[in-house]
Amino acid sequence: MAENPAPRDHNVLPSEPRALASIDSWWGEFDVIVVGFGVAGGAAAIEVVRAGASTLILERATRGGGATALSEGTIYFGGGTRVQKAAGFEDSIENMHAHVKGAAGPTADPEKVRLYCENSLEHFAFFESIGVEFKDTYYDEKVIFPPTDDCLIYSGNEQAYPFSEEAVPVPRGHKPKKEGSAGGYIIEQMIETLGALGGTIQNESRVQTLIEDETGRVVGVVAQIEGNDVAIRARRGVVLTTGGFIMNRAMVEQFAPDLARCNYPIGSDGCDGSGIRMGMGVGGAAINMNEGLMTTPFFPPVGHIKGLVVSQQGQRFINEDCYHGRVTDAIQKKADGTAFLIVDDETYGQSLGGYQMVAVEETIEELERSLGMPQGQLVHTFASYNHFAAAGVDPVFHKAEKYVTPLDHPPYAALDLSVDKSIWATFTLGGLNTQPTGEVLGVDGQIIRGLYAAGRASAGLTRSGSHYASGMSIGGSSFFGRMAGKSVAAAD
Amino acid sequence: MAENPAPRDHNVLPSEPRALASIDSWWGEFDVIVVGFGVAGGAAAIEVVRAGASTLILERATRGGGATALSEGTIYFGGGTRVQKAAGFEDSIENMHAHVKGAAGPTADPEKVRLYCENSLEHFAFFESIGVEFKDTYYDEKVIFPPTDDCLIYSGNEQAYPFSEEAVPVPRGHKPKKEGSAGGYIIEQMIETLGALGGTIQNESRVQTLIEDETGRVVGVVAQIEGNDVAIRARRGVVLTTGGFIMNRAMVEQFAPDLARCNYPIGSDGCDGSGIRMGMGVGGAAINMNEGLMTTPFFPPVGHIKGLVVSQQGQRFINEDCYHGRVTDAIQKKADGTAFLIVDDETYGQSLGGYQMVAVEETIEELERSLGMPQGQLVHTFASYNHFAAAGVDPVFHKAEKYVTPLDHPPYAALDLSVDKSIWATFTLGGLNTQPTGEVLGVDGQIIRGLYAAGRASAGLTRSGSHYASGMSIGGSSFFGRMAGKSVAAAD
Repeated sequence: MAENPAPRDHNVLPSEPRALASIDSWWGEFDVIVVGFGVAGGAAAIEVVRAGASTLILERATRGGGATALSEGTIYFGGGTRVQKAAGFEDSIENMHAHVKGAAGPTADPEKVRLYCENSLEHFAFFESIGVEFKDTYYDEKVIFPPTDDCLIYSGNEQAYPFSEEAVPVPRGHKPKKEGSAGGYIIEQMIETLGALGGTIQNESRVQTLIEDETGRVVGVVAQIEGNDVAIRARRGVVLTTGGFIMNRAMVEQFAPDLARCNYPIGSDGCDGSGIRMGMGVGGAAINMNEGLMTTPFFPPVGHIKGLVVSQQGQRFINEDCYHGRVTDAIQKKADGTAFLIVDDETYGQSLGGYQMVAVEETIEELERSLGMPQGQLVHTFASYNHFAAAGVDPVFHKAEKYVTPLDHPPYAALDLSVDKSIWATFTLGGLNTQPTGEVLGVDGQIIRGLYAAGRASAGLTRSGSHYASGMSIGGSSFFGRMAGKSVAAAD
Repeated sequence: MAENPAPRDHNVLPSEPRALASIDSWWGEFDVIVVGFGVAGGAAAIEVVRAGASTLILERATRGGGATALSEGTIYFGGGTRVQKAAGFEDSIENMHAHVKGAAGPTADPEKVRLYCENSLEHFAFFESIGVEFKDTYYDEKVIFPPTDDCLIYSGNEQAYPFSEEAVPVPRGHKPKKEGSAGGYIIEQMIETLGALGGTIQNESRVQTLIEDETGRVVGVVAQIEGNDVAIRARRGVVLTTGGFIMNRAMVEQFAPDLARCNYPIGSDGCDGSGIRMGMGVGGAAINMNEGLMTTPFFPPVGHIKGLVVSQQGQRFINEDCYHGRVTDAIQKKADGTAFLIVDDETYGQSLGGYQMVAVEETIEELERSLGMPQGQLVHTFASYNHFAAAGVDPVFHKAEKYVTPLDHPPYAALDLSVDKSIWATFTLGGLNTQPTGEVLGVDGQIIRGLYAAGRASAGLTRSGSHYASGMSIGGSSFFGRMAGKSVAAAD
């Protein structure tokens, strides 16, 4: 037998901490250091300064933002927000909980789910308190986010089978009052709030590793600032809010083979797993690492939801009116990554995805042949679908009535939604195992003193790509960022 | 916000190690301690004593065995074994590697796969050297294992699409020369070999935790022997071969939600994750924890492979001639856990699974109605299948020709294969992250000195239930058990 295995890939390795004893001088000293300024880091830092503790937030880019600033800025709130009420929707904590406990995924932490739902109105108020405005309007279309400054949308699977049977469907995606994407706006409000409160923001500061004292407690960080590695002391603790690891190809390949097939990682440069690796370097457990969101944005236009998503076998396998991520997850897991959206002349529209139209034919028989599908399968799928659609029903996959119409206006077109042929966006949903308080748990089951995490650097609220809703990342990351900020501010 | 989260479930927590300084006296001292006597532990211990080092193997049951002794005893060998040649099959290391690199799953360790294939003939010789006999015969039926003392079977997906296109299909499952199950026989040969070589086997000895010195090196174990907790010193190292965690319900629910749905855990009482938790207690990383084998044994009889496995929507979703675990994995992931095997009067036979026959009807139309399937779907599936089957082909899912015959002999019966209605056997495929040498890697990426693992306590050769073959567990566990034994015997 061979005795010397090849060296392992070092990109995935945890970052070794620095020993306190090796530190000669300190660049600065704060009660709390927050590593990474996305929505989790901003929320944590605001709670720290509001609690009267000093905070330094270190951001590797030229300005705070992270993956949040690249996003549309939808936040998942419920339980009867001002906007929900104004728009005429009745929600309750119980109803929100009935949905979110499924939407957070099968490996969700029930305690995090409960806390998130019970405190949703208070969390909405937090965003208002930092100047984020929400318009009291509902945007009544199936979109990824409102292009206008309207607020409320169905951002997940609430109306889609089987979720529609688990709770009364109500919209809970709240986009701030901003035309187009609002993620950057949320971060700007956080920057302004922190400035007003006296929090210190240090941009272009890349944290290299944690500093550990002789008892294993995390007491600071080593960061590269203006070209120098400097040590910064944290009296109460360090909060890792560095994002996920979708930009670290080696980590994705090792931990999340499904996501490794996707070609469009969603995140900032910082989503390279650095915080997860730092946490692992001091013994932190990384969990749920195989999970993530995968999505190909085949709608809008809404007409596409009326089309049929079919496998290479010509079969449907999911109700097309699910959240786009759930449909995409099904393409990967149920159709092995290969699927087509079939639309007719009435339902076709220009989509953001820029999908390749791989066939256009006057009949389904011809389309089936053009797509190299086994004879008779797509033909059956269409005949059966159209038969029931005439009565507005989809007894096979339970697409909601409003999206069910016969597809009988030739020509018929096939857009290629396959993982290797179209845009598949992805981000990770695994990270450090934390208590709801943000305290990081070691692989030995003990709390790692002085270390907290939130946002995608942790395994947070939402843990499953097939159950996900827009707004659960910013919602969960900010909520548990705040929890971490409150905890660390109150720590000894 | 709530400040005090509920306490976490303690059953899943890692086991805290004992400090060397706290040990007053030693029950004994050996070069190597092996924890758990299944095939991995036996293989490790044999290599240790063959290398001239003293070994103690601690087994919690009254006799060695573990999950291996409960199994049929198939071992996955290839590359041209004596049996393969005698039975007229040509295999090569390259051809074996071409199959196993896929069969080990997408998160496999390429180095472990390579070593396993390159050393397969030597590993076959190892089993012969401990007195395990293999008959030079091929058992030419699609079975889970030969009921006779015949040896060679197709034990995986070699002949099934798409694997059949990745490598030249040859059988590699080798069952020892023993009628019925042979797992116990393998262990008995190991017990005899160890007795002859002077290895010490201590049964009814439950290891409680590891002992760590002040530098973090593992230097022994605390075990319960005759009612007392005793400390036992390991000069060179401890090898954890304690099995997986399928008997630990809390761990399965936390880490592997798919497996948590299955009702028939495969393993011995010892497969409760104790070794994984001990390893985590000293900082070991547990990886691939979401994966495992799920299987419902719908064949034999071979006629059932000629039947159709369909979803509640009346659709097929996998070629029925795959390894039973792959079909079952597809039922879970592609059909959400609900599926029926439809057979006609010619293909039906009594099966081991004892499936509930939920409907018997003279026509497919009636069967479809009885099963509550949406109208016309099962009817189409049958009509299309039979149309092509008349020519011996399955262009939709590529079942091999020998299993494709028209199903047109009424009555038709539906056997319920659903996860909540039939036997679904399962075991875990996640565990401690090890080097091919068996050295356990900490979550910090460093080798944990003095600690080794193999078998299901580690993330070994085979890491995916949808790709698995019978024989890869015993094969991989024994091979990497041996690697660990050689490494630890040579350690300082």
